[in-house]
Amino acid sequence: MEVLIVGSGNMARGIGLRLVRGGHRVRIADREPDKAADLAAELGDSAAGEPLNNAAGAEVVVLATPYEGSKQVAEMWAGDLAGKTVVDICNPVDYDTFDGLVTPPGKSAAEEIAAAAPGARVVKAFNTTFASRLANSTPLDVFIAGDDPEAKKTITGLCLDADLRPIDVGGLKHAAALEAFQLLHMKAQEQIKGGWATALTFAAA
Amino acid sequence: MEVLIVGSGNMARGIGLRLVRGGHRVRIADREPDKAADLAAELGDSAAGEPLNNAAGAEVVVLATPYEGSKQVAEMWAGDLAGKTVVDICNPVDYDTFDGLVTPPGKSAAEEIAAAAPGARVVKAFNTTFASRLANSTPLDVFIAGDDPEAKKTITGLCLDADLRPIDVGGLKHAAALEAFQLLHMKAQEQIKGGWATALTFAAA
Repeated sequence: MEVLIVGSGNMARGIGLRLVRGGHRVRIADREPDKAADLAAELGDSAAGEPLNNAAGAEVVVLATPYEGSKQVAEMWAGDLAGKTVVDICNPVDYDTFDGLVTPPGKSAAEEIAAAAPGARVVKAFNTTFASRLANSTPLDVFIAGDDPEAKKTITGLCLDADLRPIDVGGLKHAAALEAFQLLHMKAQEQIKGGWATALTFAAA
Repeated sequence: MEVLIVGSGNMARGIGLRLVRGGHRVRIADREPDKAADLAAELGDSAAGEPLNNAAGAEVVVLATPYEGSKQVAEMWAGDLAGKTVVDICNPVDYDTFDGLVTPPGKSAAEEIAAAAPGARVVKAFNTTFASRLANSTPLDVFIAGDDPEAKKTITGLCLDADLRPIDVGGLKHAAALEAFQLLHMKAQEQIKGGWATALTFAAA
């Protein structure tokens, strides 16, 4: 499958590594094409870098950008994204307080992004997985919320290929819970000496 | 410390077992005194059962009842509970849909319970720990939200005594995230074959 990842930061890298190991082709798109090319080079022959032009040809688009950037790309590419599986991974953390989210009350970032690109099959996923845990190859829970069953099936398949455990938590309305809880996971890092490498998981007995 | 647990169901049992093992005295109060007595007998010499009379003497009150029952007890005992550490453990799940919560939009059960007993030092805790995991003695994460530092300190201490890992997630406003995410944990049981024995945790690398 061909997956276009927007962004070339740590999360783009982590998800890209998993996808390439899972046997998929990855395109890295970034406003700064040099950064996209550098990450693609690290990911190997199954990856290529490109400027932030368009999403044509990609079967899945992963917005591996911060909340505001993801909303902008969703708006800018709204036509392109209609009908496509679009993955929102962001955490709309209020970094001024580090104790709340910047989304409007009762709304998740995922729903805001879905509203910005009507017709896109938006799935929330990967917002609870720290980049460092994606980059190593151990199993990891990925919580998936979305209203389009086909889109969720696609992301579920990508996760299974990448040695990730997909957990379907229901409709996109549940993205709010994923975002709110990940804030707590982030806030707890210092307290639990997590080193930004802990995994939010439903651990078996 | 003397802890009064309201309710004699599985969660009362699980928390009671942990507290007794941690060296604390436990009172079990239930509308049906026979049930309270039975659970107290199981917990051993450090426990005693009683009818649902009052909270006098208890240093900590744990409302191990469903949401509606907890609100009722908070109202009924409002005078008694003022100044006391009160633990809300409930999950206000909408069991008709099993896909949402019955709390008013933007409000958590913990905040509703705090509103019902003004002056009580309400702490949200134990809502993400399944009873079966509390009943066995392995370590387990307990997420704690509350606005009263002293009350949180008390519950943190009880957790440490009971081989539980307390994680302070911040103010009572974060109870909403704990409640919303636990719904997802419950919903996922069938999918992940969790057997209602999984532990929501921030797992180390």
